[in-house]
Order: sequence, then structure tokens, then C-alpha cells
Amino acid sequence: MILIGERINGMFKIVKEAIAAKDKKVIQELAKKQTEAGAAYLDVNVGTAAADQEAAMQWLVESIQETCSTPLSLDSQKPNVIAAGLKVINAENGVILNSSPLNKKSDDEILDKYMEMANNAGPKSCIIALTMDKNGVPQDIDTRVAIAAEIVSKAMEKGFGTERLLIDPIILPVKVPDAQVQPGNILSAMDQIRLLAEPAPMMTIGLSNLSQGTTERSLINRIFLAMGISRGLDSAIVDVLDTALMNVVATAEMLMNKQIYSDSFLKIYSKTS
Amino acid sequence: MILIGERINGMFKIVKEAIAAKDKKVIQELAKKQTEAGAAYLDVNVGTAAADQEAAMQWLVESIQETCSTPLSLDSQKPNVIAAGLKVINAENGVILNSSPLNKKSDDEILDKYMEMANNAGPKSCIIALTMDKNGVPQDIDTRVAIAAEIVSKAMEKGFGTERLLIDPIILPVKVPDAQVQPGNILSAMDQIRLLAEPAPMMTIGLSNLSQGTTERSLINRIFLAMGISRGLDSAIVDVLDTALMNVVATAEMLMNKQIYSDSFLKIYSKTS
Repeated sequence: MILIGERINGMFKIVKEAIAAKDKKVIQELAKKQTEAGAAYLDVNVGTAAADQEAAMQWLVESIQETCSTPLSLDSQKPNVIAAGLKVINAENGVILNSSPLNKKSDDEILDKYMEMANNAGPKSCIIALTMDKNGVPQDIDTRVAIAAEIVSKAMEKGFGTERLLIDPIILPVKVPDAQVQPGNILSAMDQIRLLAEPAPMMTIGLSNLSQGTTERSLINRIFLAMGISRGLDSAIVDVLDTALMNVVATAEMLMNKQIYSDSFLKIYSKTS
Repeated sequence: MILIGERINGMFKIVKEAIAAKDKKVIQELAKKQTEAGAAYLDVNVGTAAADQEAAMQWLVESIQETCSTPLSLDSQKPNVIAAGLKVINAENGVILNSSPLNKKSDDEILDKYMEMANNAGPKSCIIALTMDKNGVPQDIDTRVAIAAEIVSKAMEKGFGTERLLIDPIILPVKVPDAQVQPGNILSAMDQIRLLAEPAPMMTIGLSNLSQGTTERSLINRIFLAMGISRGLDSAIVDVLDTALMNVVATAEMLMNKQIYSDSFLKIYSKTS
């Protein structure tokens, strides 16, 4: 399970303020804590508030790299912001470009740009591709699968290895009523998307979006993540500082035979304990 | 999700002592508490300590029925103990005969006996059939599926509706090392067993067995139950008094669209709150 730590994101007040004040320590602390908690990648998102998003992305990347070598997931839907981050990154251990839709009204070639940037960043770089297109996020599951098929075929056409694609079927908040895009259906969509290519594209989700606005955020996140792991979910962007969530990951991986049972199985993600 | 409350079982000391002392109150309290917690059925197992298992079964059934009308799951692998319980039961709202293997060294016709008893108990009665035979519990998944196929074909041959079969693939303690019968494989076995008949047999598990001897019993039970629900598990014998487990059932059913989201979704199983 590839866990991407979600906490370095300008939508969090503490990060937004640190970016504005150029307070490295806050960012470096979050990088260290998430790495210790078991993040394989650290997501880096400048948010919408930064006046100069390119400069903010570079500052975040440089600040994090001063303190740890955990690979990064550069998170922006603007290719120029990703490109700015890539200029200063050490991508030796890999980097995720997070994320590109199939296309956009204003930029039909956006996925091509992400693939080109990923290729330039080296063979260990991956792209998160969202099952959305110039019409936005689809209202149903079939359209999600159809868009994923187009993403996969575009990658194959350009010679971009499908094993370097992380497809995100875009899970919506469970609180938003929409009978056609229930979380359970997202799991079925994943089963179909996985069959689109050989090697299969990986599947990822932005877990916390599911529980937006609910009264039981951690519980909802935990239970859906357990379900996803039992259905072969490869990756998720999560709050790795949620210990209960990390315990669920350890338990689910042990039950799915990705980890051997031992009485201390919960400690596998905790490098410091 | 058909939840069968596991607590009235002579393997628990409190129940064993109540049976020996004919202390109805202990049993009735467990019946009421489990019903309030959301049990659809109450499992009734005399354990191995009772000198006269038939009499103990009848006393348990009568004691429970004095206090609540929750349907019962008569739990014994001895047909005579089940038969004794059926003599005094009110099976109007259904009864589960729990459980029969395909056959036994000493009793090749045991499943036939259970089906005959279930038929006599009325149209709402069901049988839990274990994927084990005269050779005991299989060491692999394929044999479990093959035994399930024999169970299903025996039921069809005898005209016993497959929708009245609850097949239990026998989950083993995760702590017992056996690479071939990992919990994740049990989920795959369920996918195959479900396809054996139309209408499909239901799938059930004795959840607590999974976590026997582990350091994190409730967590392991919870995560596997969430996985099972996402894969269409119909029923489980569980500790309904484990509130965290019941919260997981509510969350998993909501995520799988069996319950609509509301801010109070956790209360659906709690009839008293």
C-alpha cells in the first residue's frame, strides 16, 4: 500500500500561514512527522492562497528536502506549478505528479504535458490521472471507466508505461447525495479499470474527500480504506498522522496476506516505535 | 446484514455457570442486551460442559423466549440437541439450524437430517452449512469451494431452497500460520460459492474465530467484517455488544449503499438510543 501523506497542503491553515510567513520549521516538522508515521510519499500542495504558486511550490520542495529524503507528490492541476517544483526536486527515489484530468476545456493536451514532465523527471516518476475530462467530474461510474480507458489508451499511444499511471476514480463526499456514485460503486469501477491494461494501472483515491462534512470522519475513512485494500487498492492520499487509520492499514494488509501476522503487527508502519 | 449474537454460548464462563445453576436471569439479560444492540438472531449454544445437552438447550430456549421474541440460532453439531431445541421453540419468525457439515465419518446423512428438521420447523428456517466433510476442515480454499458445491447440489436434489442455506467457509484464526487459507482467500472463496446456485446461497462467518489468541481482537474482527460487507457477506455470528464493531457494520452498510447517509447513521443498530 503506497500511502501519500496529505498534510502539507495550503488548504490547512497552519500550512497556508507557514507559506505566507516562509516559516520552514512548520513544513519540515510535518514532513518529518508524516515520514515517521509511514508515508511513502509526501503530498505537496500550495493551495489557492499563495500569490505566486510556482515560487511557493519551489519553497515547499526545498524546505522539505532540507530535512528529509521522502519522495514527493507534487500536487497541482496547473502544469506550470508542477514544472516549477520539478526544477528543484531531487527525484532520484521517484516523484508523483498529482494530478491530471484526461483533458480540460482550456487545455486539451494537459495529460500529454504531465506525461512529458514525468518522463523528464526519470523512470521512477508516476502520474495520478483523474477520471475527469473537459466536462468535469462525471455523474456516474460508467463514464469514469470510459475516461479511464481513454487515459490508458493515451498512455499506451505515447509509450508511457501503464504501471506508472495511478488512476483516481474521484470519490465524492458520502454526504453529497448521488445514488449513482456511491462509494461501493467506486470499488466496482476500480475492478473494471484495473483490467484496462497489462500491466494494470495502479488505483489510488483521495480518501479524506469521502468523509467531508460528516460527523464520523476518521471512522468513515478507515472503513472505506479497509474495503479498498481488500479489493486491491494500490495507493491512497491519507492523513498518515491518524493512528487509528494507520492501524487499519496494518490490519487490512495483514488480513490480505501482505504482512505476516505477529503480535506486534500494528507497529509495521511506525518506524520510530 | 443478518447479525447473529454470539454471547449465549456455554463456552463463556458466565453462561456455563448460569446453565449449571439454572439461573435464568443471566441468560435473559444477555438475550435482551443483544436484541437491543441489534442482533437479528440470538445464537444458543450449550457448550460442552452441560451434562444433558438436550435438556440444557431446551432450558436456554425456554428461558430466552420468556423474555424476548428474537429469532434463535440453535447452535450444535449434534442433530439430537438441535431437535430438542426445536421441540420447544417458537419458530414463527424463523430459526437458524447452526450448523451442519456436508457429512461426518460417523454420520454420512447429517446434512439431510438438518434439512429435514429445518423443513419441519417451517418455511422461514435456515441452515448454516459448514464447508467441511468427513475429513474435517479442508486445508485449502479449492476444497472448501468443492464441498460448498456438494452442499448446494444436495440441497437442490432434496428440494431445499438454496436461499435458505447460509454457507460458512470456516475462517481460521489468523494467528495459525497456514499460507493457503488466509482471510483474503476466504473472501475469494465466497465470491465463487455465491455463484454455485440461483438463488445464491447466503454467506456467513463465525467472525470471532479469526482473532482467537491475537492481541487486537476487536480491531481484527472489525476490519475483516468491513471487507466482508464490501464483498457481499450476508451474515455473521458476532459479538453485537462490541459497540465499535456495530459502528463498523453501520458504516460499511452506509458506504455500500444499504443505508442512506445521515449524520446519525451510527444509531441504526441501536434500537434504544
